[in-house]
Order: sequence, then structure tokens, then C-alpha cells
Amino acid sequence: MRIVIGVMGSGRPIGEAERALAHELGAMIATRGWVLLTGGTAAGVMDAASQGAHEAGGLVIGVLRSDRGDEASPHIDVAIRTGMGDARNVINVLSSDVVIALPGGTGTISEVALALKAGKTVIACGWDPGAPLRAAGADLLLLASSAEEAIALVGNTLARRRH
Amino acid sequence: MRIVIGVMGSGRPIGEAERALAHELGAMIATRGWVLLTGGTAAGVMDAASQGAHEAGGLVIGVLRSDRGDEASPHIDVAIRTGMGDARNVINVLSSDVVIALPGGTGTISEVALALKAGKTVIACGWDPGAPLRAAGADLLLLASSAEEAIALVGNTLARRRH
Amino acid sequence: MRIVIGVMGSGRPIGEAERALAHELGAMIATRGWVLLTGGTAAGVMDAASQGAHEAGGLVIGVLRSDRGDEASPHIDVAIRTGMGDARNVINVLSSDVVIALPGGTGTISEVALALKAGKTVIACGWDPGAPLRAAGADLLLLASSAEEAIALVGNTLARRRH
Amino acid sequence: MRIVIGVMGSGRPIGEAERALAHELGAMIATRGWVLLTGGTAAGVMDAASQGAHEAGGLVIGVLRSDRGDEASPHIDVAIRTGMGDARNVINVLSSDVVIALPGGTGTISEVALALKAGKTVIACGWDPGAPLRAAGADLLLLASSAEEAIALVGNTLARRRH
Repeated sequence: MRIVIGVMGSGRPIGEAERALAHELGAMIATRGWVLLTGGTAAGVMDAASQGAHEAGGLVIGVLRSDRGDEASPHIDVAIRTGMGDARNVINVLSSDVVIALPGGTGTISEVALALKAGKTVIACGWDPGAPLRAAGADLLLLASSAEEAIALVGNTLARRRH
Repeated sequence: MRIVIGVMGSGRPIGEAERALAHELGAMIATRGWVLLTGGTAAGVMDAASQGAHEAGGLVIGVLRSDRGDEASPHIDVAIRTGMGDARNVINVLSSDVVIALPGGTGTISEVALALKAGKTVIACGWDPGAPLRAAGADLLLLASSAEEAIALVGNTLARRRH
Repeated sequence: MRIVIGVMGSGRPIGEAERALAHELGAMIATRGWVLLTGGTAAGVMDAASQGAHEAGGLVIGVLRSDRGDEASPHIDVAIRTGMGDARNVINVLSSDVVIALPGGTGTISEVALALKAGKTVIACGWDPGAPLRAAGADLLLLASSAEEAIALVGNTLARRRH
Repeated sequence: MRIVIGVMGSGRPIGEAERALAHELGAMIATRGWVLLTGGTAAGVMDAASQGAHEAGGLVIGVLRSDRGDEASPHIDVAIRTGMGDARNVINVLSSDVVIALPGGTGTISEVALALKAGKTVIACGWDPGAPLRAAGADLLLLASSAEEAIALVGNTLARRRH
């Protein structure tokens, strides 16, 4: 079974620097042979990461809120249409071997919390999800300040799990 | 249709002061004729609030993680068995007219985030969910330091909605 | 914890005889002190059963497809808003101690199948869900031709479970 | 976005002829460049179809009932772990462009019903889901008696949709 890395973050339009970071993460995930999983929306972090992975020849899975998938990014290869709204956030994190969270709003924070609850390692890249999540997540919540650092932490997490 | 107030918080064993606070909240919800909704677990905040409401003659709905309901508090009147694990957190907040969140871990934080995302007023009672949620929630996230204050904020929110 | 009886069936406008049957079932459930659970829609079997139970002084839980509940029957006491579309059918059957299925379409058939899969007794009242479900359901699927017969079968099922 | 064909059917051990049929369907789906989606279980129709597609070089998505994925077939490429039990049946059918249903029990029947409800074309291959589903599904429910026939019907359905 292939390794799946989830990239979560704002579903709203984002600035160029944030878009570049998400794009780079997607590309790095793809070039390592990992599958990229996002919430699938055609905007924000999800869209940029999907584009990065797709352009690098990777496989992109989008787990969508809606039942018809009209909101889907064109950079997704396979759409999982849940029709479950935010309950799909649970599927996002359960299906990811490691979660990378870029800055986002309430949806992203819910995914960080749900991922930690499910025992997943979460790498917050470029932001701090706040003291309560740091305390609750303990050593499952890691902070990174660049795509390179985030991907290195993913690699470490996967390597540790194999032992 | 009856007004439903959700009380979220730790599902682990809690101290006596926290248990008293949750119990008092449940009782105050019941005496106002509101329905209490919790995650239904027989421990922590959910159990104490359910007991308080039940003993005060109120109606208690428990929205359970499991499909069989073995984890249910004995103080619940109606069990909604979801079999969906943490995805039931979404149902908890969507089904509540107002959410009161007592201190908790990742599950509670996910419920605060999901409630704010759904446009619900969340009253954090006795704790602070952290700067990112305060920023993302804006004026939907209120802080209270006692059961009385929390219930007053619920009343204000319901009154404002009627106008 | 209170006993919950689910009544499933068409969510489309139905004829007067079908409406009378659903209404009668709702009333009989309420007068026995059982909670009525339906899919909550303001049409068809769900609406008529809810009205029957509500007018008889019973408690009616509507487990809704939507996140806002705009489709809710006015005869519901407590709305569980799932925002999960047809996935709420699973919740309907898991939360019911016994399921009564009136004639319906694909949604109702899915609920019969899901209920049988979950090990619930299903009473098909006034129709036959077909040979494949009869074969798969074996002795969990019972047929009734009147409200009285359906309610008697519910009573038998609950009594057998207590022993 | 890639075309996804869902193959549903018994999750229990099946006979050699049924296993050969599911395997052949999986292989034919893969060789046409379609993605195979199943419920992901390491038994029955799901396992055989996944093996067929995987061995033919196709991409196989397994949408799993559990949150950990312990039940997963080894022939799956990407596991979508839902932790939602049978509610994942809804995701299976929403995510499929066309659904092929092999003989199965209550779970499979629920998927046929849910797929028809979602407006999906369902091809029942080697069995008849019964009069109520035939009536409710109308021209969305097609019957096939071989893998070749089922795949031809999938092709027709996809072609019609493009026009």
C-alpha cells in the first residue's frame, strides 16, 4: 500500500508566498513517491499543493465535502466524494500516514485536532496551532518553518514507524 | 422544535471541581427547558452534565461514537448511535443551537473549531481555546468563567437570534 | 435509556391511506412510551409518523440529512442535523432498537438493508422488500400488514431481547 | 480527473467462479485506464477485483470501514480509512462514476440502493437485486450476465454522459 501524506490548510484564496509553499510541498511529496491527499477544493492550500504534486507526476487524492464534486481542484487525479461536509475532515486525517498543516482557519484547526486525536503525527508548517493543541498533542505535534524541514520531519516519522 | 444546547469537554475522568461545573451546567440547561446534547460517554464532562440535566428532569441526548453504544452514560435519555467515531463531533455541533465547551483535549478542540466553522456560537467556560481559534472564531467565540455566566451568554445568543 | 423505534419510508408526498398508516404507527409508538425516530423530513411517511407521535404526546427525534435542518418536519421535537446526506441512514438504523419500514424508494430500501446488516429487527409494513433482502435478512426481516401487527411484532422483539 | 468504477459485492469468502468474475472485472477496468474503487476488504469480491486490477497495472482505491485499516486487502494502492462503518458505503457510490454490483448481502444491496438514490448507473452482474430496487431504480439499474457485458454497459454509460 502506498504512503499517503495529507496536506491541510486554508480553503480560501491565499497569498503568493503561501501558494508557493503549498506548491513546493506538493511537488516534494510527489517526487518522493508518496501520494498527496487533500480536501480537494479548487482554492487555497489544497489547490496549490495538488497542482505541485500533479505537475511533478504524483498521484493526488481529493477527499471532497460535497456529493457531486463541483468544488474540486482540476489538479486532482481521484475525487473521493463524501457528501458529508466537514465530517470528511476525519477521513482526511485517518487516511494520511502523516499530516502537514499549513496556516488555515477553523477547518484546518479541526483537522489538526482530529489528527492528533487519531494518533497521527502533525507537522504545522509556518504557523503555531496554539498552546491548547501543543499541550494536547504533545510530541505528535511538530513545528516546521519551511517545506524542506516539513518533508524531513515526514521522512523521520515514516522511518521511525518502520522500526 | 426544542432548543438544544451542546456541552462538550473532556471524555476522561475529571476532578471534582470540573465535575461540579459540568453538573451545574446540565442542571441549569434542564431547568430552562432546553435539551442537553453531549457526546454521550460515561465519563468526564459528558457524564457529569448529563447527570445534572437528568436529575433536574431534563431531556438528555447522547450522540455516541460507537455503533452499539456500550460507552453510553447511564444519564442519557436517548442515544444516537453513529458508529462514526470522531465524525460524530460534527453532528454534535450541527445539532446544537449553542455550544458550551468545557476544558478538554483534542476532541473538544475539534468540536470548538467545527462549531465555529458551522457558524455556531461557542462559549468556552473555564479555559481559553487558544489564539488561533480566537482569531478564526472572532465574535462567535465567547469566554465564560462560571456556569452562571455561560448560561447567561447562551440566553443572550438565543434572544439575539429571535430578533 | 429510552426505547427508540425507527419508522422509515417514503420522503415524497404519499396517499391518504399511507399517511393514515404512518400517523397511526407514530401514535401507537408514543402511547407505549417509546421514542419515535425518523429521518425528519417534512413530507411523506416521516412527517405523518412524526405528527401521529407528537399529537399523542410522544417524543420525536428527526435525524436530518442537512446541516441546517430546513427540511425538518414541524412535528419533530429534537432535530439531529448531520449534514451527511444519505449517510444519516446508517445513524437512523443504528439508533433504533427496532425498525419499521413502510413502503418507500431507494432510501428506504437502503435503510432496510443497513438495519439488517447491523443486526436489527426490521418490520416491513404493507410491502415486501424483495427476495434478496428476505434471503439476506433471514429471521430479522418480518412482514406486517397493519399498524397493529407491526406494533405487536415490535413488542415481541423487545420482550425477546429482555430475556 | 480520472474515471472511477466501483465494484461492490460480498465481503465474505466467495466461490471460485465468483472470484474469477470479480478478478476479470478488476483487470478489465484497469486495462481501460479506469480507477477501481472497492470497499477495500481483504475478502470476497472486493479482494478479488482489487487483485485483478492491481495485477493488470491499474490503480486501486479501497474505501475502508475502519479507522486503522487492518481489514485492508493487500491489493489496494491507496486506503481511504473512514472509521465510519457502513456509512462508507455512501462514499463508495458517490465516488464512483458507475457502480458494478456483484452478488452480495445486505451491504451490497444497501450500496445498490444508495447508488440509485444518488443517480448513479448500477450494473448488477450475475444476479437480480429484486423487484423493489428494479422499480425504484428504473433505467439506472442494468443487468449483465458476464464481465464483458458489464464492462460494455459501463462504456455505454460513460459515452452517453459525455454527450
